[in-house]
Amino acid sequence: MSQLRVSLNLNRLRVVLVATRNPLNIGAAARAMSNFGFTRLRVVNPYDVAFREARSAVGAAALLASAEEVRTVADAVADCTLVVGTTAVGHRELQHPLRRLEYGARLLRREMGAGNVALLFGSEKFGLSNDDLSHCHWLMRIPTREAHGTMNLGQAVALCLYEVVRDPRAASIAPRPLKPASAADRERFTTMLLDALRASGYVNPRTASSTTQKVRRLVRRLDLPARDAEVWLGMLKQILWKLGYPGEGDDQG
Amino acid sequence: MSQLRVSLNLNRLRVVLVATRNPLNIGAAARAMSNFGFTRLRVVNPYDVAFREARSAVGAAALLASAEEVRTVADAVADCTLVVGTTAVGHRELQHPLRRLEYGARLLRREMGAGNVALLFGSEKFGLSNDDLSHCHWLMRIPTREAHGTMNLGQAVALCLYEVVRDPRAASIAPRPLKPASAADRERFTTMLLDALRASGYVNPRTASSTTQKVRRLVRRLDLPARDAEVWLGMLKQILWKLGYPGEGDDQG
Repeated sequence: MSQLRVSLNLNRLRVVLVATRNPLNIGAAARAMSNFGFTRLRVVNPYDVAFREARSAVGAAALLASAEEVRTVADAVADCTLVVGTTAVGHRELQHPLRRLEYGARLLRREMGAGNVALLFGSEKFGLSNDDLSHCHWLMRIPTREAHGTMNLGQAVALCLYEVVRDPRAASIAPRPLKPASAADRERFTTMLLDALRASGYVNPRTASSTTQKVRRLVRRLDLPARDAEVWLGMLKQILWKLGYPGEGDDQG
Repeated sequence: MSQLRVSLNLNRLRVVLVATRNPLNIGAAARAMSNFGFTRLRVVNPYDVAFREARSAVGAAALLASAEEVRTVADAVADCTLVVGTTAVGHRELQHPLRRLEYGARLLRREMGAGNVALLFGSEKFGLSNDDLSHCHWLMRIPTREAHGTMNLGQAVALCLYEVVRDPRAASIAPRPLKPASAADRERFTTMLLDALRASGYVNPRTASSTTQKVRRLVRRLDLPARDAEVWLGMLKQILWKLGYPGEGDDQG
């Protein structure tokens, strides 16, 4: 990730949790921040002043310890040039431009090239108040189903941060495929499988020729990697030896 | 979302939680599934048999009630044509092809057009075992920082499901911009602001001409929406009236 997005300074994003009720959710937010390399957490009037001990912040203790606790949204966003609120929408008339996460995160990234950006998350129960929202330039919506809009706070934070660091190019970079088995390997496989089928009485002598062709096509349809071909041939060789098939297994068995 | 991806049958994805320890995480997974429209949850040997009561499954009670509890991974994936494991990597030698979430989710979507797909998540503490992994065709990795790989289970499920339903086109669809104020509105705004500045003594008569140009440029740099122009003009008009500025506010004040 880092080598693909060297220019993005993640310290410029302030994750602002407003009036969070459950300290576990503050911990979950901190953990997601740590997962994706963000560092600046601000909490506005949390319900539990002991939020820094949130247990779910596995691996994010340092981030949680350095979280800034402030009294007002204005204080939390004061050093930012862009302030964005998150919302589940649907439950109130919005006075703000609304952007879907996929697009909104692009704008966040762009602004982070110039200044600090605040991303606000409201309380679990009520979301951001109209007063909180009035500090925002625009709102961002995670594209959940209309019928079930509200997300868990920790999950919502994780999704927003993921979309900010997400690499669109990675969506089209296929990993290097396994080297497929050569035609020679497939033919050896075919021959040994046919030997085993003959030795075991599977092949009807009268239809042997068509069986050969069927099995050859069958083996070609397998997605057989080169590195696996030897293993398959070894298994067949052992089976042939046990079947007492002439000429196989003598050299090694 | 639904209108953009009508062809994707979300019922074809089975979310499989293996040996989950904390029932709250099963609830969080169920909630994320419900958020994004997925329906099929399977749990393999959860630690807490009372997982269906997981409290964090706000709005996902029905989904949780219909979750299938099975004893083995083989049972959980039996009706699937593609089985994908999730991993934090780094902590063990992988025997499987590894795909980043952005790319892997595309493959899941493609396969869901043909058959059922299982997406496996391991226990919070140990992830998927090597035995669990041997049921998988390949593995998917969420691109977290190397230094802090492990994600919270509920957040990992949410991210994977989001990436499956994520609409790449939405990343480039800008919302319709607000109609900007016209040049005439901006000039009225400029004129009234200058009047107020003169009336309040802000303008030095000797530099009045350059001040006019400065204020005109200042107003042009504002990102002023048409619908807000009238509000600004109203506020200025009121201020001018209070300042006793001749000719303003007489008709309405």
